[in-house]
Amino acid sequence: MAIHRFTPTTWKNTFGQHEPVLRIASGDTVITTTVDARGFDLEKNQVAQRPNPQTGPFFIEDAQPGDTLAVRFDRIRTNRPTGWASTSHAEHVVDPDFVPSLPGTPVIDWDIDVEAGTVRPSEPVPGLEDLAVSLRPMLGSFGVAPKDGQAISSFTSGEHGGNMDYRGFLEGVTVYLPVFVEGAFFHLGDGHACQGDGEISGTGVETSMEVEFTVEVRKGWTIGWPRGEDEAYIFTAGNARPLDQALQHATTEMTRWLGTDYGLDVRSASTLMGQTVEYEIGNVYDPAYTVICKMPRAILAMIAG
Amino acid sequence: MAIHRFTPTTWKNTFGQHEPVLRIASGDTVITTTVDARGFDLEKNQVAQRPNPQTGPFFIEDAQPGDTLAVRFDRIRTNRPTGWASTSHAEHVVDPDFVPSLPGTPVIDWDIDVEAGTVRPSEPVPGLEDLAVSLRPMLGSFGVAPKDGQAISSFTSGEHGGNMDYRGFLEGVTVYLPVFVEGAFFHLGDGHACQGDGEISGTGVETSMEVEFTVEVRKGWTIGWPRGEDEAYIFTAGNARPLDQALQHATTEMTRWLGTDYGLDVRSASTLMGQTVEYEIGNVYDPAYTVICKMPRAILAMIAG
Amino acid sequence: MAIHRFTPTTWKNTFGQHEPVLRIASGDTVITTTVDARGFDLEKNQVAQRPNPQTGPFFIEDAQPGDTLAVRFDRIRTNRPTGWASTSHAEHVVDPDFVPSLPGTPVIDWDIDVEAGTVRPSEPVPGLEDLAVSLRPMLGSFGVAPKDGQAISSFTSGEHGGNMDYRGFLEGVTVYLPVFVEGAFFHLGDGHACQGDGEISGTGVETSMEVEFTVEVRKGWTIGWPRGEDEAYIFTAGNARPLDQALQHATTEMTRWLGTDYGLDVRSASTLMGQTVEYEIGNVYDPAYTVICKMPRAILAMIAG
Amino acid sequence: MAIHRFTPTTWKNTFGQHEPVLRIASGDTVITTTVDARGFDLEKNQVAQRPNPQTGPFFIEDAQPGDTLAVRFDRIRTNRPTGWASTSHAEHVVDPDFVPSLPGTPVIDWDIDVEAGTVRPSEPVPGLEDLAVSLRPMLGSFGVAPKDGQAISSFTSGEHGGNMDYRGFLEGVTVYLPVFVEGAFFHLGDGHACQGDGEISGTGVETSMEVEFTVEVRKGWTIGWPRGEDEAYIFTAGNARPLDQALQHATTEMTRWLGTDYGLDVRSASTLMGQTVEYEIGNVYDPAYTVICKMPRAILAMIAG
Repeated sequence: MAIHRFTPTTWKNTFGQHEPVLRIASGDTVITTTVDARGFDLEKNQVAQRPNPQTGPFFIEDAQPGDTLAVRFDRIRTNRPTGWASTSHAEHVVDPDFVPSLPGTPVIDWDIDVEAGTVRPSEPVPGLEDLAVSLRPMLGSFGVAPKDGQAISSFTSGEHGGNMDYRGFLEGVTVYLPVFVEGAFFHLGDGHACQGDGEISGTGVETSMEVEFTVEVRKGWTIGWPRGEDEAYIFTAGNARPLDQALQHATTEMTRWLGTDYGLDVRSASTLMGQTVEYEIGNVYDPAYTVICKMPRAILAMIAG
Repeated sequence: MAIHRFTPTTWKNTFGQHEPVLRIASGDTVITTTVDARGFDLEKNQVAQRPNPQTGPFFIEDAQPGDTLAVRFDRIRTNRPTGWASTSHAEHVVDPDFVPSLPGTPVIDWDIDVEAGTVRPSEPVPGLEDLAVSLRPMLGSFGVAPKDGQAISSFTSGEHGGNMDYRGFLEGVTVYLPVFVEGAFFHLGDGHACQGDGEISGTGVETSMEVEFTVEVRKGWTIGWPRGEDEAYIFTAGNARPLDQALQHATTEMTRWLGTDYGLDVRSASTLMGQTVEYEIGNVYDPAYTVICKMPRAILAMIAG
Repeated sequence: MAIHRFTPTTWKNTFGQHEPVLRIASGDTVITTTVDARGFDLEKNQVAQRPNPQTGPFFIEDAQPGDTLAVRFDRIRTNRPTGWASTSHAEHVVDPDFVPSLPGTPVIDWDIDVEAGTVRPSEPVPGLEDLAVSLRPMLGSFGVAPKDGQAISSFTSGEHGGNMDYRGFLEGVTVYLPVFVEGAFFHLGDGHACQGDGEISGTGVETSMEVEFTVEVRKGWTIGWPRGEDEAYIFTAGNARPLDQALQHATTEMTRWLGTDYGLDVRSASTLMGQTVEYEIGNVYDPAYTVICKMPRAILAMIAG
Repeated sequence: MAIHRFTPTTWKNTFGQHEPVLRIASGDTVITTTVDARGFDLEKNQVAQRPNPQTGPFFIEDAQPGDTLAVRFDRIRTNRPTGWASTSHAEHVVDPDFVPSLPGTPVIDWDIDVEAGTVRPSEPVPGLEDLAVSLRPMLGSFGVAPKDGQAISSFTSGEHGGNMDYRGFLEGVTVYLPVFVEGAFFHLGDGHACQGDGEISGTGVETSMEVEFTVEVRKGWTIGWPRGEDEAYIFTAGNARPLDQALQHATTEMTRWLGTDYGLDVRSASTLMGQTVEYEIGNVYDPAYTVICKMPRAILAMIAG
């Protein structure tokens, strides 16, 4: 149950079995930082290369293939007063014949006011002069080493997690990741001060972060896709293209979870989910899209598991 | 501004330029009923044929091609004590290799308790004996006559609306539909006592309804896809397969709306939506899927339109 | 076995149960003409409206729901010396970020030289001055009245056939269509002097045609999707978006066909198709895409049906 | 212009910058062998692990990022008398509601008769007792090290090539691959004695091979996706899910090729491709699908480049 303060000096652009930056035990907490998606740190110095440089990997001593790694995000806080964001929808989130209408303009800076709890464009954007978006710091990207010895770009996602860009990966959330290799190799990065559903412009308000997280190895609890929970929901994440397939993964994973942990056979789980399930679109920008399948705790509290 | 009480005796299985059941003026209110998706009425007599028999069409006197028909759902209330729902996920919302695990079981009845505000399985479902879902009556299906003289099945949806099965089509919502032919030809049906996102089992709790709605013709306000608004949001609906395309339609339509009615050029709209847009998955079951693109009124209130 | 010479004076923009232009019997042959996709006839007079005006419908006396309508295209010949074609890829067949590079230029005319058997741009196109494409007259669009009383635009396709835009619908091919309503209601139109796979620019070389076809009702032979055959292949057509789903329909339909008519159970059909099936992309332009699943007759000749 | 005879003793399951097994120069030829998709060699001994173990990587001395690696397959020959193949369609190539009808049966062996030029099931399959498929040895999988330091599973594909499972990768074909890292790192494996379009059952007739290939570095000729050519066609390969996106990549890449090497601007290329392009479905089984976009040499011969 140690607490590690770790200051990164190297960052990775793939999720893989890289030389660990730190070895920690189940139950340990790490306090560290992440740089923004282009590798800029809290002082706006570029210390790493894009895309989405990751802090880590952290080797978790007990983690074995078939286990699940639980990571509680104890704290996700912006650590500099600005971020930057795109000013144009991605080409693939609008009708193909609307693409020529997209501005194709460069990114702009946004001011992050922690005290006010707001994020605002640093320069005047016509019509948005009074805009103040709520500060909601999140991590766009985290995950473990993938299976089959792969090293997968931090630009995309998969069963190992990765660049899911789901606005719900907030402080207070616990995420679960399948462990494919001994040590799990946990990486994290790509913080956003705020973000809309889908990350449709290709960015949140990209910034550096201070992050505190606590890991726990769930021995013998095998999952297929990233999962998570917060006070109001349990959820699963499916990562794939197209959205239809991402949704299939997330739905199937939730159905399995309701079976193993809530005692519902597929008929009962179907009956329940049909009337109560909720979905969110994590991202519809990255090479793999992310769909979140959520079940409310208020509903699960009625289950006679 | 007349109020019409209309008792249907015929129902339609397509959205089209059928003989109108009633001619009404812009500003008029209609109080009527809808039968369930299989044509059963408030006394559980089958009076119409599946799929999704529609009450109507109502001819709106002022509506011309290029106009928009606003329909405010003043009241959507269940009018019988039971509904029915599927007990199995649809095959296409789970991983293909999970399909053989689906139960393929028949529908069951659910009890609707208006006083308690709950919907509960009428027969014991293992593990769900204590389940009580909140009653949230909605209309799965409504729309106008499509363009090009088409008559499109009430099983699917398109630019004309149709079977969108979005759980957010609740009492208090105002929807907007493009008018393609003189008179608009408004139809409605397929009520659900409750429904999860996506209608992933192929049904909500299907039941008959009493519905009161008020129409208004917006002259010369031309839209491309169904839109709507409630107290907290304005939203657009994109209807297509796959989900990716439905989302493109909804996103493009919202971008246009922010341009014409909120004064934002595409760069400003992109900048805003990227950090604040929300999506919901209306349905991922019907031949055309539905994605809802939402903008919070709290955000729009900051726009210097 | 009558031969009908039919000169159309009306055309339809939907496939539906319209007033028949002619009633014919199983075994009858019809010699008629079609106008081009914008309604221009052999003298380049516009006599009908877009999209894809259809000659017909023809009522086939014996056809009942559950039967199949066989249509042999005895003759498909261009009947004027020019056609026209797009000069730009459709936006949705290229990478989204390539869309702004598309020219968005108007259509141009092409010269059809029946004697030489060639089709050539009527005006100089840089680099294509010497281009001569082989004349291969085909019908982009034909079909029957859809189920559920629908009238579906001749711009799209479905189980009823419709605007499939498959370059293989040539003279000599026999097509099979499911009969949904008494009389079948056969329509045809949208001839192309030639076309690439996928109709990726949204047009073939669009022109008017003289067509001779012979119908035959196959009593009690029920099919799910359009099928066809020529000297070298039997094939099925799946019509849907995305391509993946169109391919699923076509593959499933072929698997069923090998079962009912060639005596192969699903294991044998899978084993065979896995090593010998062929696919073609009919169209990837229209609202519903078309994938063709083909089995070579040379392979089927080895089946001990 | 050396000829290397290389006998592999290690195999890789990812495409990446692994320790090279051999360093060769542009112009060199390699004669080597590949094992089957499960790692069995010519004597049916398992010497490597699945999935799709690759021979290599070969380091090509001159290859630099931005160059293109040309690989001519001088010889692709089966080197043992049997292969094996699936007896069931993949779940995702049939309609979701057809999945429960799939047999889910194990693979069977096939006999490869080089002299007769045929491939036949080794055990009786009902109805297929007389089946003899033409022997058409091909490589399912080959590619270079991907960009961004990734190591990507040999089960899938991308811009680097990989497991494309296109039946057209035959002896005599020259393929082109983008070079992302110095040395290119060429891998190859996963031979099939024959295969249908799409690899819809998840396998061809999987077997070991003897392969001879010659590499050539095309300095400064930068491509975006794998390309190839044979006597009749030039072609591009797009690798992605869904098929629609794979087709977009392949179509865009061909459009670019016609621009840089055939002098056609986008309008001319669109005009030409619209009437003459051909597509093939390489695979619709692997995580990334493959669509091939082909232009006939007979057509290109008419281009005044």
